[in-house]
Amino acid sequence: MDKTETEIRLTVGDVETLVLDVLGANGFSRAQAEAIARTMVPAETDESRSHGVYRLIGYVRSVKAGKADGKAEPVVTSLSPSIVRVDGSRGFAPLAAERGRPLLLDAARAQGMGALVINTVLHNSALWADLEPIVEAGFAAIAMTAGQSAVAPHGGSKPVFGTDPFAFGWPRPGKHPFIFDFATSAIARGEIELHRRAGKPIPLGWAVDTEGNPTTDADAALAGAMLPFGGYKGTALALMVELMAGPMINDLISSEAAAADGGAGSAPLGGELILVFDPERFSAGTATANRERAEQLFAAITGQAGARLPGDRRYAARRRSEREGILVPRALHAELLALAGQAETR
Amino acid sequence: MDKTETEIRLTVGDVETLVLDVLGANGFSRAQAEAIARTMVPAETDESRSHGVYRLIGYVRSVKAGKADGKAEPVVTSLSPSIVRVDGSRGFAPLAAERGRPLLLDAARAQGMGALVINTVLHNSALWADLEPIVEAGFAAIAMTAGQSAVAPHGGSKPVFGTDPFAFGWPRPGKHPFIFDFATSAIARGEIELHRRAGKPIPLGWAVDTEGNPTTDADAALAGAMLPFGGYKGTALALMVELMAGPMINDLISSEAAAADGGAGSAPLGGELILVFDPERFSAGTATANRERAEQLFAAITGQAGARLPGDRRYAARRRSEREGILVPRALHAELLALAGQAETR
Repeated sequence: MDKTETEIRLTVGDVETLVLDVLGANGFSRAQAEAIARTMVPAETDESRSHGVYRLIGYVRSVKAGKADGKAEPVVTSLSPSIVRVDGSRGFAPLAAERGRPLLLDAARAQGMGALVINTVLHNSALWADLEPIVEAGFAAIAMTAGQSAVAPHGGSKPVFGTDPFAFGWPRPGKHPFIFDFATSAIARGEIELHRRAGKPIPLGWAVDTEGNPTTDADAALAGAMLPFGGYKGTALALMVELMAGPMINDLISSEAAAADGGAGSAPLGGELILVFDPERFSAGTATANRERAEQLFAAITGQAGARLPGDRRYAARRRSEREGILVPRALHAELLALAGQAETR
Repeated sequence: MDKTETEIRLTVGDVETLVLDVLGANGFSRAQAEAIARTMVPAETDESRSHGVYRLIGYVRSVKAGKADGKAEPVVTSLSPSIVRVDGSRGFAPLAAERGRPLLLDAARAQGMGALVINTVLHNSALWADLEPIVEAGFAAIAMTAGQSAVAPHGGSKPVFGTDPFAFGWPRPGKHPFIFDFATSAIARGEIELHRRAGKPIPLGWAVDTEGNPTTDADAALAGAMLPFGGYKGTALALMVELMAGPMINDLISSEAAAADGGAGSAPLGGELILVFDPERFSAGTATANRERAEQLFAAITGQAGARLPGDRRYAARRRSEREGILVPRALHAELLALAGQAETR
């Protein structure tokens, strides 16, 4: 490996080892670390980099700042025949989601639908990773989580919402599941930071300045507020995510999560809501025939030049990563090795 | 009343009588007509005109074309402890939604969550009207329905989706419920038609021509396809609506609904899905305290100049209409009276 290259090529196994080493060296329990790896390594593999290994820095910072418990043991209870609750106990979302999943799927099978309420977790992982095992088990599912307030309502100027992602999945037996997962903000905060560093203007529509005026200046945007995607409709959707993943499940709204962080720069504290639907029950036992109708819908989209299915880019990246390995910036790799207490030996 | 005025002022009661007269004179059962009136009169009152009395023309056309049954009796069954199904039997959505509601709310109370699957209805009414009684009963709720294909996926050129609306409601005891209801298309088809008649260009982003090129020409747009709101994110949401209100519940996708219509110009045939959540169960018995947290969120939005809550405009219109009456275009009023077999006597 040429040390002068700016990126290092790792196998999927190398990335997993790196994640476990960093978390293990920083006081995370094996259970927390392995669950984080099971969402973070696929994110890196799928080139869903905003949820990849660079997030390790924030995970460790959250624990060092006393905002998160890297050894937390989630507590699973039942709120109703259909609703499973996991108290994440200030650990990270992936282990809480995993621990709740068996009971959630039991409830969905028995009742035709089910919900997983996850409380008091730090959430920096991708929602699609929480949905994938559920959708692969044959269910349709929705997931949502709030964040830390950084996004103004359409027409406003002050942050109210987090990037408040919303995800949906649909099973496709014999194929990768259909899963989309998008922030209800116009763009990720990191994209604005990248433009600032590069000294480039940001597109109109991403953010407003402190006065609520549209801006192309990245500094003014970071001082002001991000905007929701899709104007008042995206605003409405963000508000739904806040209500359902916040007050409905007795957890924080994004402004409370920002206050709880207090500028520490940790992952957002709060809740996550997962809703699960059994197509066999919803279709009165005709799910197999209806899967074909869903496939016609997908084909009507993929058959158009210029259109694509959400998720297809991720699955193409997954195939590539598994075959060719994963490129990680050398500087980031060195920083992560240092965080793991290891010298850069390769 | 001056006959030269272009609008006639009716009371809410007058509008209700007009709706019942038109439907009664055109072979609708009393039950179907009254249920339609219970969603159409509030739509007119709330100045949600796209679901108001002008839709009567389409309702009657649907029956005359043999596409709908104006005397249909919905059949209610149970698909699981949580899922209620109503077979609308080619009647209209409002009666089916009403007939399913008592069992739906029972299921939501017993299980903490519930779903109403409505099959084989013609749907031209507002989703918010279906949600309002559910949300006023103290539940959070989501509703969605497909349409007739007219909207291309982001990047594409051929219609796949209907205007595929999505609605959400949150209870606010002592206040009007919070309810939003938006088409996942950038704009209603009727808006493009209004621009065409007025000879005005349409804004970029509403539609593409038959080649998939962005267009400001209303004729080219009507020949081509409408666009989703919010680019690929709105596309993803429309796809979710199609899957959940179509194949998941054994009902039509928008292209099938368009084929079933066969150019008759009737209301879209298909399904509707309503999901209901009991905040008391989801919050482990802390709904009252959490309502306050939700109100803080609303206040953080309404406290910003330029921002507003979805639905507030409708509620302001409702107060105005109840006090001052409802203005209906005189030409439309005459057409509706003729449809009711009545001369214009007022």
